[in-house]
Amino acid sequence: MSDPRQRRLAALVHGLTTAHVDGLLVTSLANVRYLTGFSGSSALLLVTPRDVVLITDFRYQTQVAEEVGDFARVGIEPQSLWIGLWQHLGQLPHVKVVGFESAHLLHRDFQRLLENGTRWQWRPTVDLVETLRERKDENEVALIEAAAKVATTALEKTLRQVRAGMTELEVAGVLEKALRDEGSEGFPFPSIVASGPRAALPHARSSPRRIETGDFLLIDFGAEVHGYCADVTRTVVVGRATGEQREIYEVVRGANELASQRVHAGLSGRDADALARDYIQSRGYGELFGHSLGHGVGLEVHEAPRLARTAEGALAEGAVVTIEPGIYRPGWGGVRIEDDVVLEASGPRILTQFTRELIELT
Amino acid sequence: MSDPRQRRLAALVHGLTTAHVDGLLVTSLANVRYLTGFSGSSALLLVTPRDVVLITDFRYQTQVAEEVGDFARVGIEPQSLWIGLWQHLGQLPHVKVVGFESAHLLHRDFQRLLENGTRWQWRPTVDLVETLRERKDENEVALIEAAAKVATTALEKTLRQVRAGMTELEVAGVLEKALRDEGSEGFPFPSIVASGPRAALPHARSSPRRIETGDFLLIDFGAEVHGYCADVTRTVVVGRATGEQREIYEVVRGANELASQRVHAGLSGRDADALARDYIQSRGYGELFGHSLGHGVGLEVHEAPRLARTAEGALAEGAVVTIEPGIYRPGWGGVRIEDDVVLEASGPRILTQFTRELIELT
Repeated sequence: MSDPRQRRLAALVHGLTTAHVDGLLVTSLANVRYLTGFSGSSALLLVTPRDVVLITDFRYQTQVAEEVGDFARVGIEPQSLWIGLWQHLGQLPHVKVVGFESAHLLHRDFQRLLENGTRWQWRPTVDLVETLRERKDENEVALIEAAAKVATTALEKTLRQVRAGMTELEVAGVLEKALRDEGSEGFPFPSIVASGPRAALPHARSSPRRIETGDFLLIDFGAEVHGYCADVTRTVVVGRATGEQREIYEVVRGANELASQRVHAGLSGRDADALARDYIQSRGYGELFGHSLGHGVGLEVHEAPRLARTAEGALAEGAVVTIEPGIYRPGWGGVRIEDDVVLEASGPRILTQFTRELIELT
Repeated sequence: MSDPRQRRLAALVHGLTTAHVDGLLVTSLANVRYLTGFSGSSALLLVTPRDVVLITDFRYQTQVAEEVGDFARVGIEPQSLWIGLWQHLGQLPHVKVVGFESAHLLHRDFQRLLENGTRWQWRPTVDLVETLRERKDENEVALIEAAAKVATTALEKTLRQVRAGMTELEVAGVLEKALRDEGSEGFPFPSIVASGPRAALPHARSSPRRIETGDFLLIDFGAEVHGYCADVTRTVVVGRATGEQREIYEVVRGANELASQRVHAGLSGRDADALARDYIQSRGYGELFGHSLGHGVGLEVHEAPRLARTAEGALAEGAVVTIEPGIYRPGWGGVRIEDDVVLEASGPRILTQFTRELIELT
């Protein structure tokens, strides 16, 4: 199998030409990992049509050799990555105009470019690498699917142990241990375990609140395998569901099902969002679905594309996106059901295999 | 007890005058939390001598009311926080020169200031709030101490369960569950569980490697209580220690003890670093202590001050810093022992109560 980095590099070099730059300074660590395989937390990457230069610090000397091999020229900088950048750039006489990632460079570091990099012209660029990352190859999809399997297996183990009287934090602990036991490399975002009225907070964190019989329990969490993330939400009832809980649950389930079946490459992010939103609105709950339908997942748990009312662009073939409609009634509770879906040429395929029927933990 | 936010605000307003700005746009979420109490993940804060304006999105409507009360004028923005910023700024005619946080503003957002904020002069500032955060008050120290107690209790529980044959990821799962059971709100950074030769990697993450009898096991992790972090490392031997393991361990333990006893307010970060470094060097292992001695902890797990060879500034009274010397022999293993120490007027006080004697898990 050919090295996917070669293909990615060629595509990026094409993008450099279009952006009229001689090279690109990559400061997003996810983009560095995508292009070179390096997974450390400290790196500057310079890509030109002829050169790939990766600068990191001594802590990663062993790791960078293992992960990057001879794909890039590697500089290990004892003091500051920026000093290394000036030295390496100075050895590339054909490079005069250098792009940088406007969404991944702090103003402080932008000032460094202007003050210490006066020999070069610096040009802001947007999404040159992110656009490439949107289309996942087979191997990437397989890794997200593996992460989804870790996530759903951990959720299954967790739900068997949840009881009224446990705190949200305790449930998070059970879940996170199960994720580790299944091999998750990390937690892509802080696990949300939100019970009762707290399930109405679309961005709750886990709290010391004790779960009561009759509560909705909303669990939104991630898993990570070889750097690739999955993002899953399920909402269950601890005890028997009331008629009202069941009614709202079924509206969210219908919206999730409809959107997961109909989302496809070529659709705009706005029209994808509308699949679920129109359905929820038609059932009379439109005001209570306050966030957008979903987002891409991959090396980052939130990445391109967006599925939202303000997203004009068409979804790419190969994109993996979340489908996560929700209904939230302040003070009462809320329901969200979230799956990860890959947009294949033949249509959408759900990667997160876990029942969407209402579970009552009795 | 008076509201600490009033005191912090007064100190910041003093800083604004010194920096010759009429107001400050705060984009660091940790700084927003410090100044207002708001713990959400989306916020812009504007502080002037007369105004405190906090802009967030609809997801945090309930939370911001609870956490901020009437300390700030709160704007809930449905579309973009930046649109809210222009509206609120437009209502403050006395504000002409506005500082922004150079280390916490992306170039993309800096461009927004230049393009959409043409009515104002924008001036980069550095560390205006971070400098205030360096001196912890009693309540902050108590929270870090509570987080340290959560961390050390969880570590004790974990070490009772560690056996040769477990993977590093499984140990991480046991640890993280114990942290949740003790009430940790989150994991300030990805837990490092590194065994055998992997203990030589100063920035390892937890891996699927199975722990073998005779391995060093290095565990570096954090806990969080009401937003405040603790950061702890211990290194144990799984089985009986060899003479060489014991020798290296004792050098690190000596360096940790010496630095924890002698570090004090007024010392420069460089001289603090030298306390441990000179000791390790005198024992012949100087080349194998490749990182700096420590860093501040508080609302962030890495914050000011730095204890490093390049840190000229004096340590503030009230600072809480890590003391984390280490020795790493590539391919063989490594030892790090890390405590959190508050620099009180009367001298240093260790917040992380856990034995520093070599533990052999037999």
